[in-house]
Amino acid sequence: MKLIGPFKQIITLDHLDLRGKLSDEQLIIIENGGILIKDEKIEAVGDFEDLKAQNPSVFVEAIDSEQIVLPAFVDCHTHICFGGNRANDFAMRNAGKSYLEIAEAGGGIWSSVQHTRNASEEDLLNLLLERINKLLSLGITTIEIKSGYGLNVESELKMLRVIKKAQALTKATLVPTCLSAHLKPRDFEGSSEVYLEYILNDILPIVKAEDLAHRVDIFIEKSAFLPDESKAFLLKAKEMGFKITVHADQFTPGSSRIAVEVGALSADHLEATSADDIQFLASSDTVAVALPGASVGLGEPFTPARKILDANGILAIASDWNPGSAPMGNLITQASILATFQKLSTAEILAGLTFRAAKALDLCDRGILAKGKKADFVVFLTDNFQNIMYQQGELRPSKVFVNGEMLTI
Amino acid sequence: MKLIGPFKQIITLDHLDLRGKLSDEQLIIIENGGILIKDEKIEAVGDFEDLKAQNPSVFVEAIDSEQIVLPAFVDCHTHICFGGNRANDFAMRNAGKSYLEIAEAGGGIWSSVQHTRNASEEDLLNLLLERINKLLSLGITTIEIKSGYGLNVESELKMLRVIKKAQALTKATLVPTCLSAHLKPRDFEGSSEVYLEYILNDILPIVKAEDLAHRVDIFIEKSAFLPDESKAFLLKAKEMGFKITVHADQFTPGSSRIAVEVGALSADHLEATSADDIQFLASSDTVAVALPGASVGLGEPFTPARKILDANGILAIASDWNPGSAPMGNLITQASILATFQKLSTAEILAGLTFRAAKALDLCDRGILAKGKKADFVVFLTDNFQNIMYQQGELRPSKVFVNGEMLTI
Repeated sequence: MKLIGPFKQIITLDHLDLRGKLSDEQLIIIENGGILIKDEKIEAVGDFEDLKAQNPSVFVEAIDSEQIVLPAFVDCHTHICFGGNRANDFAMRNAGKSYLEIAEAGGGIWSSVQHTRNASEEDLLNLLLERINKLLSLGITTIEIKSGYGLNVESELKMLRVIKKAQALTKATLVPTCLSAHLKPRDFEGSSEVYLEYILNDILPIVKAEDLAHRVDIFIEKSAFLPDESKAFLLKAKEMGFKITVHADQFTPGSSRIAVEVGALSADHLEATSADDIQFLASSDTVAVALPGASVGLGEPFTPARKILDANGILAIASDWNPGSAPMGNLITQASILATFQKLSTAEILAGLTFRAAKALDLCDRGILAKGKKADFVVFLTDNFQNIMYQQGELRPSKVFVNGEMLTI
Repeated sequence: MKLIGPFKQIITLDHLDLRGKLSDEQLIIIENGGILIKDEKIEAVGDFEDLKAQNPSVFVEAIDSEQIVLPAFVDCHTHICFGGNRANDFAMRNAGKSYLEIAEAGGGIWSSVQHTRNASEEDLLNLLLERINKLLSLGITTIEIKSGYGLNVESELKMLRVIKKAQALTKATLVPTCLSAHLKPRDFEGSSEVYLEYILNDILPIVKAEDLAHRVDIFIEKSAFLPDESKAFLLKAKEMGFKITVHADQFTPGSSRIAVEVGALSADHLEATSADDIQFLASSDTVAVALPGASVGLGEPFTPARKILDANGILAIASDWNPGSAPMGNLITQASILATFQKLSTAEILAGLTFRAAKALDLCDRGILAKGKKADFVVFLTDNFQNIMYQQGELRPSKVFVNGEMLTI
């Protein structure tokens, strides 16, 4: 056992609803608090002096100046296992060039596929670990990571194996997802439906056998996979025992409905979701995941987060960090900007970055500071937790803890 | 004399038009380049080996790994001299609270005025230097700083004297601006017009006598000063020998026209400028200053930068860093986000952050890397200059030089 503190403020995020609107008045803020750790889990959160008095022989890990602490953040949607760089795509897109012109210049998602296929496992692992460490330094200790730049048996498995290797080398919790259905690769001979069959027959059985991922994702969009074939694919993947998440309604509406119908853990993007479909999604247990990094990366509308919360939906916020549409990788900046454009309370933003995002990953052991939860938390050298969102990502954590142990960040 | 290099890329920004559209193909990129420094100025920019051969006895300041270099950035619109913190305003605004509710909770600009008035010169100076150092660390070596949280003789002069003291303590070039016409303070007895007369009679003569600022600014907006009284004020300030800049068209259109009519150096904000007024402004020598930090701070529309450039205007980009509407302070993140929403080429963004922003400050000695210019430049450890905008502010400079000397950042 050890007692960490005293913290100027502990923002527990405890006792908040999993779904719907939250007001900042609902936040529990413990002043001069401490966190008691036992066996890598939180044993108690409360007044520092009280906890010390109740546990007179406990080891105290002293916090040296006034700092505030929150549950560590969860990034429930990333594509950070990739080779190559698409800075030229970004420049061309901003300069008004079309997708076709970018593709002709050697850019677009196909460029990421080629670079990822050509990268050695070692290089891919090092790039991935660098990005994981960046996220850890922002206080993000649980990270979903998708495949989807391999798009054939060999390279999809390479990506997922690299993620598994990374898990052995990092303190972060990595949640791998098989996104072989990112798009049909140029070099696949056959229809989209045949490619989806190929994933079901040739990729997913090995993913299952090697225990590389428990989750399957698909990009439902005119440019990727159509609604009917996607729904059939997801139902089969579900039958195989995979949990489901969906890239839904990014540019055209309709696919979040499929996510709900197949019982997906989450429907992600939703920039183009219709009013009816917001209601449908918000009435379900499928988490709505806003990806403001794609909005500021592409200059496109934001996910209608306010409407989703008002309709009593479960709203999480993730970075979508990827080499094409969301190259920034600073989830805190993105969440703060989403807050200003969508008018989200600090409680709604923090919930979306913690326990609601954990729900999207089917993890109920984290995202709040309360007895029995995983002792992952993030510490800021500031006098008020409001400064984190106020400084829009410029206030970086002073300390990050995983399982009650301080990381070197 | 000394030769700095070799750099993997030097982006000179030389030979670009002061106004209008720019394509990335117009950028001059010198590979394996060097910068020759003489008497704190740039003596030559060119191929590193050529410069070395031409100057065989020159001292070489070696760059230890592959890095790229650009002219240092210019932030031509900030309010970074202030006391207090308005994180609670930010949280309340995002939670949907009205200006009135925020004011009743002790927030709003009046809170910054009170904190700034109550701050000692020493405290204000330390806060200001901290923010200057933050901007320097981002590669910004020329910083405009406004008064405007004093709003009476004593406190406006205190702010400007603090900025003058800061100038003696920093390597950055500080450009002070008198913004006593930020708004009429609550405790001023009399009309707006009388307050503007008070500025002209009681503040500006001392500003001039003590050489505290050469520039005068006003916030023309329904909530601040009306067009006619503002124009009369600006013409009188101009007669006193001040250069003019204007907070124009932030929420309601019309005031950028006044900026042009009085020959202002710049018209800043412009989120609400009408199509006709964009043409009028773009045909003038008044620089249009986009402030994306206010857009992402408030969740409001962006300055129509694309239209301004297409109309052949001079577009600069500044942070507007202030405690209320633009608390982030990372101009690079903001510029990159402006680029995605407004579709600006990298050349247009970089020009807006350098020589076009310098034009807004009437400085023609900086913002490009060319013979005779001030040797202020910013260095990034990356293989391609495109990564600076691509990473949306997350790639921080590795080195910053002022007058040819490397700063400790």
